[in-house]
Order: sequence, then structure tokens, then C-alpha cells
Amino acid sequence: MTILETMAQSAKYAERVLSIAGTKEKNQALLNIASCLLTRQAEILEANEADLEAARANGMSDSLLDRLTLTEERIAGIVEGVRQVAALPDPIGEVTKMTKRPNGLIIGRRRVPLGVIGIIYEARPNVTVDAAALCLKSGNVVILRGGKEAIHSNTALSTVMRDALEQTGFPRDCICFVHDTSHAVANEMMGLVDYIDVLIPRGGAGLIQTVVANAKMPVIQTGVGNCHIYVDSEANLQMGAEIIYNAKCSRPSVCNAAETLLVSRAIAREFLPMAKQFLDKKKVELRGCSATKEILGDTVKVATKEDYYTEYGDYILAIKVVSGVEEAIRFINKHGTGHSEAIVTNNYFTAQKFLNEVDAAAVYVNASTRFTDGFEFGLGAEIGISTQKMHARGPMGLEELTTGKYVVYGEGQIRK
Amino acid sequence: MTILETMAQSAKYAERVLSIAGTKEKNQALLNIASCLLTRQAEILEANEADLEAARANGMSDSLLDRLTLTEERIAGIVEGVRQVAALPDPIGEVTKMTKRPNGLIIGRRRVPLGVIGIIYEARPNVTVDAAALCLKSGNVVILRGGKEAIHSNTALSTVMRDALEQTGFPRDCICFVHDTSHAVANEMMGLVDYIDVLIPRGGAGLIQTVVANAKMPVIQTGVGNCHIYVDSEANLQMGAEIIYNAKCSRPSVCNAAETLLVSRAIAREFLPMAKQFLDKKKVELRGCSATKEILGDTVKVATKEDYYTEYGDYILAIKVVSGVEEAIRFINKHGTGHSEAIVTNNYFTAQKFLNEVDAAAVYVNASTRFTDGFEFGLGAEIGISTQKMHARGPMGLEELTTGKYVVYGEGQIRK
Repeated sequence: MTILETMAQSAKYAERVLSIAGTKEKNQALLNIASCLLTRQAEILEANEADLEAARANGMSDSLLDRLTLTEERIAGIVEGVRQVAALPDPIGEVTKMTKRPNGLIIGRRRVPLGVIGIIYEARPNVTVDAAALCLKSGNVVILRGGKEAIHSNTALSTVMRDALEQTGFPRDCICFVHDTSHAVANEMMGLVDYIDVLIPRGGAGLIQTVVANAKMPVIQTGVGNCHIYVDSEANLQMGAEIIYNAKCSRPSVCNAAETLLVSRAIAREFLPMAKQFLDKKKVELRGCSATKEILGDTVKVATKEDYYTEYGDYILAIKVVSGVEEAIRFINKHGTGHSEAIVTNNYFTAQKFLNEVDAAAVYVNASTRFTDGFEFGLGAEIGISTQKMHARGPMGLEELTTGKYVVYGEGQIRK
Repeated sequence: MTILETMAQSAKYAERVLSIAGTKEKNQALLNIASCLLTRQAEILEANEADLEAARANGMSDSLLDRLTLTEERIAGIVEGVRQVAALPDPIGEVTKMTKRPNGLIIGRRRVPLGVIGIIYEARPNVTVDAAALCLKSGNVVILRGGKEAIHSNTALSTVMRDALEQTGFPRDCICFVHDTSHAVANEMMGLVDYIDVLIPRGGAGLIQTVVANAKMPVIQTGVGNCHIYVDSEANLQMGAEIIYNAKCSRPSVCNAAETLLVSRAIAREFLPMAKQFLDKKKVELRGCSATKEILGDTVKVATKEDYYTEYGDYILAIKVVSGVEEAIRFINKHGTGHSEAIVTNNYFTAQKFLNEVDAAAVYVNASTRFTDGFEFGLGAEIGISTQKMHARGPMGLEELTTGKYVVYGEGQIRK
């Protein structure tokens, strides 16, 4: 038996304890994790420094270095997140419907944990704590496998959490951490269908594709977002310009940022220069169709077919002038990734048509796509944003980490 | 492009129409399908006769021949099923929650179809109509791939349904039927991840395992049931005997039938002879542990480890004497398939413990496992019984054939 299999077996054992643990006990564990992360922050920061030194030696880019960095302030933020998860209602045990059947059977559907959740993620050490806290609260054992860049930080964070668990009477293995960051071990993890109930990859498109292609257990796909803003002929153009500026520029690296602007031909000549004024503030590179170039001139590069399929994650925006809402919907359903899509319009029927016919996890009227997020949607926390249709779609909070169990109360009923 | 790819592309096109079709229109199509199945039953029965002749020539067993056979009465039953689906509430468009956020955004979660659903099934032609009706009602395009034994019947049934669709203004390809019953085409279907959103295998364990192992898209596992009845030390023994008799003998071939009887040691000597009296009525073959043999004598065969993992689907029952509810729960969680599990007891706390700790889609107190079924649970219809935890667990009705879409109504909100 490999090290990983032994760990997975311990995870299954821990599942039996955690799946039936009380809310009070889980919250105590979470609050103790929060306290211990604070009292032991020196060793966490020291471990993080080791990761940062190695990263700098390997020439890691500034933006990735920033993601990897922990500070006292950031640890305080992570700790606050754990406390917030403790304060959220426990989804486990809730009966979502209950009926009495004509034969007297009382049938209820009770929320229960999924079981053991595997998380494969990249360089951000905060995921280690966020994911562990959400899984713990929802009664799921987690097996964490982070990127090699953050191995020292993640080891320190998971050790603190496991110690804190033990202090509150839970098995340490309610939170399992895979120390080996090799591809071989990630691949082995994707095959452990008898131990891991669900695998959630968090990271770039490459990681997600690898996991989807290779995992033997169910996977929840998260976070690929090629999002559009469509500005309709009957839009408030000022609102349209503010929305595309916010959706593109407030945080271009995230999945709910806009990548393509679609503009109705009827208002393109008036709207595009307005939008450009906003986008120029962040020096956004524009790649447009011929109609866009005709209006905005040679500062606009030519958009290729490829551009319209690309999630830039950067200050780059593709633009296309379309004939109207029909073409916009067709274009979005063809090029989009089913994440978040928005229309700006004053017309009631156009808005309804867009909401009805665009196929995505979140469809907006007159708002920025940047709101697709567990906190913004009121879920309290988020383990990722599902872009698939099965099980969960859109921001995934605690409820999305559960499944159902029918509980049936009888009085000796047999089936005729 | 292969024939199947062309069909799948047409399915995707039909999806655009069906996914936004009104309830009234879908119901009209269903009622027209019901009428046409009746008025054209002669050609359906003729096609079925061709299948039956071939099956008899190939030496098909009587029970399989029975499953394959259509009669006027059976067609009437199938038609009644379609009418019942038409009468069920439309799940599509329902908003399952809607909130207003502090920033004024109104966020609702709307039920929408999954998209294109593939069904791979075996020899029962009624599945062709049942599955098509449920998918149509829930706004999903279906691609049906039945077994070669029923190819003539299925072709006739799907042709009638497609004609009926067209008469009511829907694309024929809302119901697609794969004429080629080769394994090569089934395998090709499992790879069409760009066209088929979900694959549901319906049939024996072999079919289900093949689909789970090979499908590139999400699969919903259905119908493998190694179910247990545990008769506790504090049980009403008469009730226990009636329940095990019902769970084993009322229809042994189905997935919610019991395969193993667990008996508390404290009442084994009194209970097992009572249970045997019932089971002898159907000449059930008993395979027991040594304690069982000691009580019931040499008519009981020795149960091997293998027996406790087997879904017999026949008049065979494995028996094990256990020390109490703790051992029963451990045994069930180890050997069960997470389908349906029951305890017979008068003790409140033992009942609650069993409900809490057994990990299965449906857990019963004092009732037969045979009730795990969409109709019995009040879902109105059923496309299968999911034994997985993701997306749907237990009987799957119309709601389980849907996913969600967040619709967000704004007034120009941008994210800070």
C-alpha cells in the first residue's frame, strides 16, 4: 500500500467520525483552528519565507510571488475567514423536504456530507485553510494536495490545523495533507475512486483539464470564465461603459472578469468611444472586429477567431459589433464557457430574452459579471465556482458540499 | 463526421428550441405522443414480433422474452405513463430561491434543463418511451441507445414519437434514436462530451460499469442494490419476518430487493425459524454464517465472503447473525452499495442511530426496502435510482433532470 493509499484509508476512517459530528463540536474545532493559526503564526511565516526564497531563486514573477506571500495581515484575514465559516449555519442534518405518503410512510430528504473531498490546487496557501474550513463545517474529510511552490507554507498550515483538530477531540485525519507534490502522486490521487468521493481542482485551465481528463471519481469543474458584456441598442450607454470597465478592469485575473464586449450595431458608433475612454484609464489592449476598427481606428488590433475563445486574465479585451440581441446570444452560447454573462439594456423583453436563452451559471441584466462569487451571492463562503451543470452550478458554498439521504419512518409497511 | 456526430449536432440544435419551450407546448407534444402510440400500435406490435422471433431463434430465456414482449395491454400502460408525465408539474422555470442583496442586486436560482441526455439501456422497449417522456417534460433532448434485442420495437416506438413531435411543432430531434446497436457506436457515444451533457446507463451491473469506466462526460450511476434488512434485538419479530419476506420475495430481480438479512444474536434463535417459515413459501435458498446454520440446521448453505457482496436478484438470501446495531451498521457500510437499507426495531435510539450512521440513498425504519422508487416516494415518475452522491441520490424524478441558472437583476451595479 502506498503512502497516499494509507492516508486515504485514514481519511475514510475519519469520515465516520466527522460525518456524524455535532455542529457545536465542529464549530469548536474551527475556532480552535483560528486561534492556533494566530498563536503559531511565527512558524507559518517562517515556512512561507522558505517558499518565497525558493520562488525568488527560481525567478517567479512578481504577481505569482504576491499570491504566494503570507503576512501577519493576510493570516489575520485567513483566520477571520475560518471564524466566518464557524458562524455560518451548519447545512448537515437539514431536512429539505418531508412528506407523508398515502401508505403512512414518512419520507424526508436529509442533507449529509459528500464524504471525502480531494482538492488539487496551485500556488496560493490560503486555499489550504479556506478549503479545509469549508469541508470541516460541512462534515467532509478533505485531502489537500497543493502546489510545490507553497509546500513549506502548506505543510505548516496543515500541521497547525491538524494539531488544533486533535486538541478538540477530532481525528487529525479529518484534514489530510499530501506532502509529495510530484505529478505521479497527483495522478495516483485521481485514481483513488474507492476513497475519494469528489475531486475539485482549483487553479488554471491546464490543471482543471488534466483533472477532468484523468480522474476516475466525479470532478467538479471550477473557474474557467470567458465572460461577455453585451451592450444593447436600448442600453443606458453610461451604465454600459461603467459596467464593462468594472467587469474588465476591477480584477482582470479572476474568472468572473469580462473578456469580450459585444455591442449592438445601432449604438456602436456612439458607445465604443465612450467605453474606450474608460478602458484607456487602465491601458486595456483592444482587439476588435472590422466594424470596431472602423469606429475606433488603428489603435485597435484585429481580433482573430482564437481571441473570442480566449480567457485573457489580463488587461486585454476582445470586441465585436453584432446586429442585436439574437446574434449576441448565439455568439455567447458558442464562445462562452457557461460562467457569467451580462446584458445592458432598458428594454424589458430584450432583458427577459437574454436571461432565458443564454446558457450560463449566472446571467445578469444591468450589472457587472464580477459579482459571481459565493460571498456576493450571499452563500457566506465559497469553495469555487462550478461551470458544469451536474450537482452544482455557479458559486459553491456549504450546501453544495452536501448530498442527500432519504430517511423513511415506517410502521411495518410492506409493498403490495 | 460520423452518423452519430451528425445526430448529436442535431440534438444540440433541438436543445435550443426545447430548453425554452412552454409547458403547454411540451404537454401537447406528450399527449400527442400518447395518442399516436395508440393509433399506430399495430406497427409497433409488428416490429415487436420481429424482435421476439429473432430472440426465440437465439434461445432467449423466458424471463428476458417476457421483458421484451409488448402487448396491447402493455402499450396501454406505457401510454398511461406518458399521460401521467404530461400531468406532472413542469420543473423548468421554477425559482428555488431568490434574495435581494444589500447592494440591491436581486439574485434568483432558476431551474433549467441539463441539455442533452444520453441513455444507454438494454432489452426493455418501454424504457424508450418512459425516458423520452421524462426528458421531454424536463426540457432535455434525449439520445436513446437501446439494446440490439429490441431494435425493431425501439425503432418503431421512436419513429412514432418523432412523428408526433413534428406534428406539434417540435424538431423531431428532440428525441434522437441510435439505430446502430454495435459496441463501437456505444463507445463513440461515451466520447461525445461536446454534445452530450449527461449519460445515464440503465441495465445490469456490467453495462453500468462499462459506462462509468469509459464515458468522458458526467454519468449518473443507477440501480445496483445490495440491500440489507437488520432485525434488532428489540424488534417486533412478526413485523421483521413480514418485512424480510416482502423485501426478498415481492420482486427479487429489482434493485431495491433485499439480499442479506442481519439478525441480532439476542433474538436470532427465536426469529430465524419465523423468518424461514415465510421464506420457505417461495423456496428461498438461504446462505448463512455458522450461527445461522447452528440455528436453522443443514438446509442452510454456508455463506462465503463473496455472498455478502452479491446482488443475487433471485430467490437467494444471505444471512448473518451480528452482535447488535453497531456491527450491523459497520457490516452494511462495508458490504452495501449505498442503495436502500432497513432496520426493524422498537427502540427509538437504535432507530435514530441506524438512520444517522448508515450511508445509503434511502434508510428505513420498520418498512421494506422495496419502497425505494420514484412513484412510491411521490416524485410521480422515475428515470432511475441514483446510487452515487453527486447531483442526485435515490429515485430520480423530473427535478433531478434539471440544473440551475442564477438570474441576476441589476440597476447598474458594479463591484467595488
